[in-house]
This record gives sequence, structure tokens and C-alpha cells, in this order.
Amino acid sequence: MALSEALKKLVDDTAVFAVVATLQPDGSPQQSVVWLMRDGDDLLFSTTVDRRKYKNLSREPRVNIMINPADSPYTYAEVRGTAALTTEGGPELINQLSRKYTGKDYAEFNPASQDDAQRVVVRVTPRKVVGSL
Amino acid sequence: MALSEALKKLVDDTAVFAVVATLQPDGSPQQSVVWLMRDGDDLLFSTTVDRRKYKNLSREPRVNIMINPADSPYTYAEVRGTAALTTEGGPELINQLSRKYTGKDYAEFNPASQDDAQRVVVRVTPRKVVGSL
Repeated sequence: MALSEALKKLVDDTAVFAVVATLQPDGSPQQSVVWLMRDGDDLLFSTTVDRRKYKNLSREPRVNIMINPADSPYTYAEVRGTAALTTEGGPELINQLSRKYTGKDYAEFNPASQDDAQRVVVRVTPRKVVGSL
Repeated sequence: MALSEALKKLVDDTAVFAVVATLQPDGSPQQSVVWLMRDGDDLLFSTTVDRRKYKNLSREPRVNIMINPADSPYTYAEVRGTAALTTEGGPELINQLSRKYTGKDYAEFNPASQDDAQRVVVRVTPRKVVGSL
């Protein structure tokens, strides 16, 4: 499944916040806000091994990402996909994301992050994209 | 479960877009963007009887609403709750929402809506609220 050129450009060029939906152990939905990057047609976000979404995605890789830019709120892309998790490259990804979204290294943007649990790369491979982007 | 005063004020006073997560027939997550209002501690949004989220919520009322204001993107409220659906008051709710978000009646904002399927009021009663709002 390929991302549209408009969606690729939005993710590459703007600090758009995304909302990720995962599944709780009881099957109910859980959502959180993430910074987002792209590698080809995969979307990448960061988490840590003690976060709810990491635990949920470790058990159940089906995931949904909503991208709805604030400056064009009637456009959106709902990306339905599957998440693959790895700690490899975890510190590098959060730094890349931090520079994209804040202009700073992550340790500078969020000094308390030195006490964070191990960082994880979440790679979402799209199965289907719904929406106008 | 009570909403915080900050969250009530945000929903009442601003045209904040929200992201709703429901569950597909296969149990995977589905997301969509909605306009939002409030009645006491319940959150209200609108849909139509032919939309995916109506079908999903008719079968499985567990729902999640993410509220993440664009002008304060590091604040959020994740509302986990249960949805009750009714067509009663459906046209009135979409008009109230349209006036809140666009300043116009819905038929004026979206003339094509005259062909819409029957309007539904989705009332979400919170079970838990996570986040900084």
C-alpha cells in the first residue's frame, strides 16, 4: 500500500501531530498523540518500553494512525496498518523527531527524558489508507 | 466520571476537532475526525446511519475520544467511554455543531448534506479520562 504524494509531503515537510489508536488487553481502543516521520511508505513514531501503546502493540500489532492537519482540518488520512517494534535505532529516531518538531535534540527539549525507559521505534506498514490525503 | 473544568471549557469555548476511535467488526481500530459538544459530563458528536463509525458503535459501544488542541499540542485528554446512539435530535445536533464550528447552519455549510442518510446523536459517557486536560 503506497502513501499519496500529498500525504508524504505533509509528513515530510510539516510538524503535523498524529493520533495513534491501539487495542487494550480487553479489546477496547486506546489513543495517544505522536510525532511522525516516514521511511518510504512506512510511518515511524517513537515510544518507550513502559508505555501503554508499546505494551498494546507488542501484544496486538494492528494499529491506526489519524493525520489531520490543524491548518486544513477538513483534510485527513486514516492509515490502517501493522506495527513492527524494535529498540534498535530508538535514540536516533527520537532525536530526529525532536529536531523535526522542536528544532532541538530531544535531551535539550525534554531534559527529564534522561530517566526515560528504553526507546522503541514503531514502524507502521500501511494496509489501507482512507481519506482525502 | 467527571470531565475537568479545563476540558469542559475547551469543548465549550473552542472549535477543537477531536479524533474518535471505534472498533471494526474484526476488532481492529478505526478512527475519524469529529466536531464535538458537551452535555454535562457526556460528550456529543454527530454521524449518519450509513457511516462506518455508526455501524461500529451500534455493534460495539466502547469508544475513545482524543482531544488535542492545535494551539496547545502538548496538552490532551483521552476520554475512554461508552456510546449511546439515537436518531432523536439528530438534525438539531448537527446544526448546533455546525454553528459552533463554522458559524453557519449545516445546510448552508454543506449543501450536499440534503442527500445525507439519517443523522444520529452519539452520546459518549466517560468511564476514564487520561491526560493533562
